[in-house]
Amino acid sequence: METIFADRISDVPKSFIREILKVTAEPEIISFAGGLPNRDFFPVEQIKTACNEVLDTDGMEALQYSTTEGHNLLRKYISDRYKTKKNLDVSSENIIITNGSQQGLDLLGKVLINENDSILLEKPGYLGAIQSFSLYKPDFNHITLKPNGIDTDELRNVLKIKSPKLFYTVPNFQNPTGVTYDLETRKETGRIIEKTNCFLIEDDPYGELRFKGSNLPSFKEIIPDNTILLGSFSKIFAPSFRLGWIATDNKELYEKLIVAKQASDLHTNYFSQKVLYQYLLKNDIDSHIERICKVYGEQRDSMVNSLKRYFGNKITITEPEGGMFLWVTLPENINSMELFQAAIKKNVAFVPGTPFYASNPETNTLRLNFTNSSPKIIEEGVKRLYEAFLNFSE
Amino acid sequence: METIFADRISDVPKSFIREILKVTAEPEIISFAGGLPNRDFFPVEQIKTACNEVLDTDGMEALQYSTTEGHNLLRKYISDRYKTKKNLDVSSENIIITNGSQQGLDLLGKVLINENDSILLEKPGYLGAIQSFSLYKPDFNHITLKPNGIDTDELRNVLKIKSPKLFYTVPNFQNPTGVTYDLETRKETGRIIEKTNCFLIEDDPYGELRFKGSNLPSFKEIIPDNTILLGSFSKIFAPSFRLGWIATDNKELYEKLIVAKQASDLHTNYFSQKVLYQYLLKNDIDSHIERICKVYGEQRDSMVNSLKRYFGNKITITEPEGGMFLWVTLPENINSMELFQAAIKKNVAFVPGTPFYASNPETNTLRLNFTNSSPKIIEEGVKRLYEAFLNFSE
Repeated sequence: METIFADRISDVPKSFIREILKVTAEPEIISFAGGLPNRDFFPVEQIKTACNEVLDTDGMEALQYSTTEGHNLLRKYISDRYKTKKNLDVSSENIIITNGSQQGLDLLGKVLINENDSILLEKPGYLGAIQSFSLYKPDFNHITLKPNGIDTDELRNVLKIKSPKLFYTVPNFQNPTGVTYDLETRKETGRIIEKTNCFLIEDDPYGELRFKGSNLPSFKEIIPDNTILLGSFSKIFAPSFRLGWIATDNKELYEKLIVAKQASDLHTNYFSQKVLYQYLLKNDIDSHIERICKVYGEQRDSMVNSLKRYFGNKITITEPEGGMFLWVTLPENINSMELFQAAIKKNVAFVPGTPFYASNPETNTLRLNFTNSSPKIIEEGVKRLYEAFLNFSE
Repeated sequence: METIFADRISDVPKSFIREILKVTAEPEIISFAGGLPNRDFFPVEQIKTACNEVLDTDGMEALQYSTTEGHNLLRKYISDRYKTKKNLDVSSENIIITNGSQQGLDLLGKVLINENDSILLEKPGYLGAIQSFSLYKPDFNHITLKPNGIDTDELRNVLKIKSPKLFYTVPNFQNPTGVTYDLETRKETGRIIEKTNCFLIEDDPYGELRFKGSNLPSFKEIIPDNTILLGSFSKIFAPSFRLGWIATDNKELYEKLIVAKQASDLHTNYFSQKVLYQYLLKNDIDSHIERICKVYGEQRDSMVNSLKRYFGNKITITEPEGGMFLWVTLPENINSMELFQAAIKKNVAFVPGTPFYASNPETNTLRLNFTNSSPKIIEEGVKRLYEAFLNFSE
């Protein structure tokens, strides 16, 4: 039989990163390609205790169908944490538990994007957002990301000629660049968006992973009416649980998201929500995060220092104050895809920049992950990368 | 700010059942409304053991990000079970683990349905399918469901004038009616669909819950090229884990589904997949299912017998050989929505038939669930239902 697929899926390419990760799974390869948290910090024993406690307390309830909104106690925990950590008032009634924040993107696309609606993304931007939103066939508009956040002049100009439905941003330690918006860029972005009908989606999976500097205000504080928050437990607890959330005060939007969530999968894995909540109740997640940050900070320093030592000023790099990634800009004549092929021969891998652009990629860029290798391995990997680079830089 | 939602979500109503379930949560109400499995059969202790074994064996691996396709050993288990239980050849490489079979519906809608594409549903049909597919704005076409399966003349006629993308069917113990397609209807449906480009989606969440009669062949045996299989562990293991699957031999379709799954939530909760697999490895799920069937069969008998005793031939009911639901047709002049209001006053609840029709509902129908109450409670509930009914049947 002949299959005619929906238009929305026809243009979406296979995930480039997924393909790369297959190549880089060989044990002899040092991989800076993935976006994996360091598994040494997964609280295995504490999760085991939490599983037992949940099943001993009311196991049958924890195994039954549950509500689309998510586990009430977990929603309350997230609400409370917004208050204590960021002094934000986010009612637990405005939170939906999702399958990682990735599902938040899909649900927002579902309820907000009609074909050809304008939406704004950072350039370069999070690959998962490009993929999710692509399925709803929007008109992608890119705002250049600079070392201190987006180019606000570009933002202002695009808002003069278009009425975008949403601007998707990762303001803290962005994926792929590691860039954090400074205070002035946040405020200026807020001033520009404030009086429009454009939602600002603040995705903040890495915000708690800060090893240097101090926290900056959420857009929720600056433009509360426009801001939708996405969050995730993947980077501070365990990714395999696929637990994240959406928070919005907009009641009409919230109801539409619930309908979309229910149509998508009824509700998120309730047993896992209960286990996570039990873990949070019995453990000090802040000291857990502190331990993660200490090690990630050392790994980040190792990568920044090795890159400077080997490459000097032949490349430009971001120097993130947190998160999991940094971004490299090669000399203009070097194509990072070709460098990738050479690097694989030297047993080191990274993600070329191309997939992080919905269009017009800058071909001389690449992403490095520093959270999944020890400082020593990082140093060796950067050395190999430099050896590969030497093939091109004559 | 003013929000303009995507067209696809504007028309989708809030789930009627969700609203009803709120009303029926009061403890004094006997509820035949939900679709909950009997929680007494959730294998709490065995799941606890499985959690401990998974975390003790390679806990860190079980907590890391995983593949979009799903846990390989679980996919292999499902493939093997198709072979031993149904003598079907379904390669594990053709299986994607999803968040319940509900997510399978969303993914299939995403990759197959363009706006106004024709799709076929049973009438009445599964509410979750109506909801999921609605978001992709298809042209719904309904095929009347009779006591032995769909009306194949209607199917033949609609295929003469339309080219539907898919026909969604629950051939065993259908939700909402409890109807099972007999062999001749299966074969005739197969003959009609075989040479078309219409996929047949066989959703089979209840197939293993048979208390009477014997199993009938899957459409995968009859029209293998057209058939896509959906399955679920919710009814034989635990719903809160949200674990189901899609199986298709169509490689191109499989790849599109993987792209859609990745864009939707990267992958399904991997820890839960490992726990389920560990449970399946160490326990005899067939005798577990046998125990469930024994009790569900008694509950079904209690409901069928009570309905006959109280109502005699004033109503028509289906007499399912398995599953969780039966279907009542009231006299034409009685509106089941009005009966619902009267029934709630008598402290008994059900789901009126209306939401199971994407259009032109038969207003004198209703769904009863028999798996979540003991035979004694069922008898009492049916008595109350009859008392409510007496208000209308003079």
